[in-house]
This record gives sequence, C-alpha cells and structure tokens, in this order.
Amino acid sequence: MYYIGIDLGGTDIKAGIINKNGEVLSKAQTATLANRPYQEVAKDMAMCSLKALEKSSLTLDDIGGIGIGIPGLADNVSGRVIFCTNLGWNDIPLRDEVQKYLNLPILIDNDATVAGFAESISGVSRGLHSSVFLTLGTGVGGGIVIDGKPWTGAHGVASEIGHLTIEIDGIPCTCGKSGCLERYCSATALKHISGEICKFHPECSLMKMAKGDSNNITGRMVMDLAKNGDEFALKIFHRYTKNLAIAINTIISFLDPDMIVLGGGISHAGQFLVDAILEKLPDYLMFKTLPYSRIALATLGNDAGIIGAAMLSKLGLDYN
Amino acid sequence: MYYIGIDLGGTDIKAGIINKNGEVLSKAQTATLANRPYQEVAKDMAMCSLKALEKSSLTLDDIGGIGIGIPGLADNVSGRVIFCTNLGWNDIPLRDEVQKYLNLPILIDNDATVAGFAESISGVSRGLHSSVFLTLGTGVGGGIVIDGKPWTGAHGVASEIGHLTIEIDGIPCTCGKSGCLERYCSATALKHISGEICKFHPECSLMKMAKGDSNNITGRMVMDLAKNGDEFALKIFHRYTKNLAIAINTIISFLDPDMIVLGGGISHAGQFLVDAILEKLPDYLMFKTLPYSRIALATLGNDAGIIGAAMLSKLGLDYN
Repeated sequence: MYYIGIDLGGTDIKAGIINKNGEVLSKAQTATLANRPYQEVAKDMAMCSLKALEKSSLTLDDIGGIGIGIPGLADNVSGRVIFCTNLGWNDIPLRDEVQKYLNLPILIDNDATVAGFAESISGVSRGLHSSVFLTLGTGVGGGIVIDGKPWTGAHGVASEIGHLTIEIDGIPCTCGKSGCLERYCSATALKHISGEICKFHPECSLMKMAKGDSNNITGRMVMDLAKNGDEFALKIFHRYTKNLAIAINTIISFLDPDMIVLGGGISHAGQFLVDAILEKLPDYLMFKTLPYSRIALATLGNDAGIIGAAMLSKLGLDYN
Repeated sequence: MYYIGIDLGGTDIKAGIINKNGEVLSKAQTATLANRPYQEVAKDMAMCSLKALEKSSLTLDDIGGIGIGIPGLADNVSGRVIFCTNLGWNDIPLRDEVQKYLNLPILIDNDATVAGFAESISGVSRGLHSSVFLTLGTGVGGGIVIDGKPWTGAHGVASEIGHLTIEIDGIPCTCGKSGCLERYCSATALKHISGEICKFHPECSLMKMAKGDSNNITGRMVMDLAKNGDEFALKIFHRYTKNLAIAINTIISFLDPDMIVLGGGISHAGQFLVDAILEKLPDYLMFKTLPYSRIALATLGNDAGIIGAAMLSKLGLDYN
C-alpha cells in the first residue's frame, strides 16, 4: 500500500507518493496562491497529488489514504481546518473539499507535528520511542512523538512550544501574548537581536553585508560570519544560542525525550549550531551530571512534510 | 494481590498497604531523622512498612511488591537513588538496603510523579489518558501521566516543571539556574511576592497578622485575607495567580493533557485558587477559543504518596 502526503504551505502546495517505509516515490509542487477561495486551493491540492501519482508507476487503487500537513490546527473528527493564520482560514471543511476530487480517507494535522513524525519514521529520530521536533523558522513550531506516534494532546493543541512563556511580560508576540519562546528562538528573533546589536555597531561586517540596513540581515548572514569568527556576529550568535539552550532545557526538563531534532531555516547552520547549544546547555540544565536527550539536525529537509503527512494517513488506517 | 507504598519525605516516612484499586487498607508513619546514615533510614522504611502490614489483616505472602516515592531521582535498573537533596543522599543503594529486611521487588520514583500517578488511579484524574500533577509547595514538583502510566522520560529526568525557565536571567533558583518556574509559582514565591508588596505597605492586614515581620507570612495568611477581600492580600494573590496561569499555559501548550491537577500546600486554598487561575488563563493561552485541559484540585491529600508508590509497584509487576 502507498499513501499521498500533502504539505500545504503559505507559498507552495507539495504532494508526494510515499511507501509504507516513509520513502518518497514521486512528488509534485504548485503555488498555493493563498488569497483565493479555499475551494480552489483544495482543488489544486488534489490536482497536485494526481500529478505526483502520474509520475509514479502507480494508480489510485494503490493508494490507501491521504495525509495533509497544514500551518495551523485541524479537527480530524469533522475533517475541518480550525484555523490556519497564514492562509486566513477559519473553520474550513478541507477534507470534504479535497474528497470531491479524491475519494480517499483523509487525515489532517499540524505541519511541525507531521514533520517531526516523518523524522521518527525515516529521518534522524527513526525508530525512537520519543522525540521532539523544533522548527526554527519565521516562528518556532514543535512536533512531539511519544511511543512512536505523533502527540497532539487531549484537545489537539499540544506541542505549541513556540508559545511557551520564557520571559514574563517579555517581547510582544504575534499571537497576542508576550514573552513567547518564538520571540527569542526563531529566525525572526535572530534578526531582532542582530538589529539591536548592529544599532550600536553600524560599521560591523554584518551591517556591511546588509548594505547598511539592518532589515536586510538574514540568519544565514549571521551564521556565515559567526562561523568565520566575526566578533559582532559571534556576539549575536551567542546571545541567540543562549535562548536556544533555554528552550532545549524546557523540552528536556518537561518531557526528556530520546532526541530533540532541529529543523527549519536556522538549522541549516548545521553542527556549528548544535555544538554551540551543547556547549551552553549544561548552564541551563537542572541535572548537570545525568544523561539527556540527544540533539540532532533534521535530515529529511523539505520532504519531511509530505512524508509525515503520508505516514499520518498510514497510522490512521493501521488503527482502523 | 496487595502492595506496600512508601513515601519518603524529609520529615516523615509514611508506609501503607494498598489494594489493586489504589485504596488504602492501613498505614503507619515514623520520623525520617534525615541526618543519620541512610542504612538506618532504609531499615526504618522497612519497619514502618511492617507496622502498616500488622495493622492490616494481611501477611507478607499477600504482598506483591514495594514502591517508594522519594524527593529526588532514582534509577530503577540499579535500584539506586541518584540523588535526594533534602536528605543529602547521593548514589545510595536504597533498593538493596530495604530488601535486607523485606525481600520483595522494589521500584523507586520521584514523589511528585508517584503522587500524580496516584491521582490518575484513584483520585481526581482517575482513568484519564493523560494528566499533569503540579505540587505547589516549598518548590514546584511535576508528575506526568501519559496513557495512564507515569512518564519519567527517556533518561528519567522528565516532569521537572518547576525548573523550566519562565524568565530569562530571572530570580536565582536553589538549583543553580535562574528564572525557574518554581521561583514564581511555589509557596516560597508567594512569600517572596508578599514581602515585596508588604515592604511598601507595612500597615496592611497581612503584616499585622505576621506580627510586623514579613518572614512570618504564610501562604495560608495571604489566601485567607484574599478570600475576605483584603486589598493588599488580593494584590499579592493576583500577582501570584498570574504566574500560575503562565505555568498552566506552559503545560497546555506543551502537552495539552486531559487534566492538570493542583496539589501541595497552596492548593488548600481550594476552588478560590482554581477560579482565579481560570479567570486569568485566557490571557495566557495561545488558542483562546478551543477547549483545554480541565484544572482540578488533588483529592488524595497526604495519601497520594503511598498510593502512587504502591501503584508503581503494581504497574512494574503487571509488566513483568
């Protein structure tokens, strides 16, 4: 049996045909064009899936079901998207809409949750009993795997690690609260810290690279300069990785999973980032002499979404 | 089959005979006298258990095993206590030592973990799939139950919710870090907030009750005055319950359990406390319109430790 995995993003729809081991047979991609009616987006999700199917040597009879990862929250009883901020969706009957074109069982879950699940099926955390996936991008997403299965909580609102408070009355967050972890640990946070430091050092290499405008600073610039030993980039990097060490301790002290997997744009800094976190972590751990979760980089990259969504579908069908 | 549950505290050793449903048949208690050699404490744990057994109509042949809850961390492979700060214990062979007097299988775990487990067996969270127990006492302890079983993590260091950071570079903690949740949410934190506010209001009712010395302020005093509508006590209470709402959001946004159970001294303020948390919680939740964990008061009181320890033993034996 094979499964269709759909990764619905604010920019692109990706679809893939995935086998039971989480391996990608074929894939296709199309623009989301988020501002149009949801019915059109749903239709393109189905069409994109059919395009991926065409590229494989399979037919619809070989497909057991469809999984969809969304940048938001869904209810699998009703098959509705509860909300999806990037797309401006509120209470959308996504399952029914996609099933108009593809009459297969459909399960929907959060994109970070399915990406973390994908890593635990065929990525770096493969086969582990428990893991927490942390996407360090524009925001910070979380995906929890417990007993080899995605954990979305009793009411489907778990693993929103980006919105744990790490500073009481701290930096205002886009969610309406303040002091949320993602204000300190996302790529956006890294840019924010860069802006703060560059304000006082307008002649630094980073500002030169950003053509004198701190708004042009990217995470990549900071990481590249820090790797080369640039003084101010390292200062920014250390302030940022201190925040990450605090976030990692939060995961360890709460759940103590086998592994914490780092994904998202910032994770492209690679082992340099992991080493910096590991160096700082002992200062933020409660139990300094005991073993703790391995920290690893995600390995599935952009395919994590389609793989995890497909595996979600498989999991649902295996249970029924 | 019946089980012995031992609750090892810094002040008292409690032991109980518990049936398979988590009901207490008999119990006994003796002073810990923490400063003596661990061998003597272990012997008294066994003697106290035998005293409880004598009070029941049972004999050792009716007992399947022993569970021990400790204010610290243990390794159940070696049967050793890794450490137990209150007792000054480091790497103590507790299982072997107790087995010198009671030749039964022994499992050891953290006291908040076993108390939370007890509530999920025969207390307020009975039968629920997932719950998080939060003891609000001198410190803040956590006990996680997932799939009806205690969750101690991949390396045994999970559920240390009191040591999640909720303020970067915040109030120094006894653990050596700073900004730990328990510095803001424990009974000690409530006293700290009281001291801060009473410094500027030395004529307030709370200071009168404390005979002019803020060191005499207890959580009970604050709660009693706040319930009666006293202005400054309410100010302290609101500042404190705001911190608790942040802590509760941390648990919801991370794990989203069926229920969050409040125990420990502060929880004796009862529904008044729960209502205050529920009133503030929407301001600190990410998903304001979705259902979330029920917040409830622990119901097993001081028996939670012996019940949970005994049920840990039952769980271990059921698995083998």
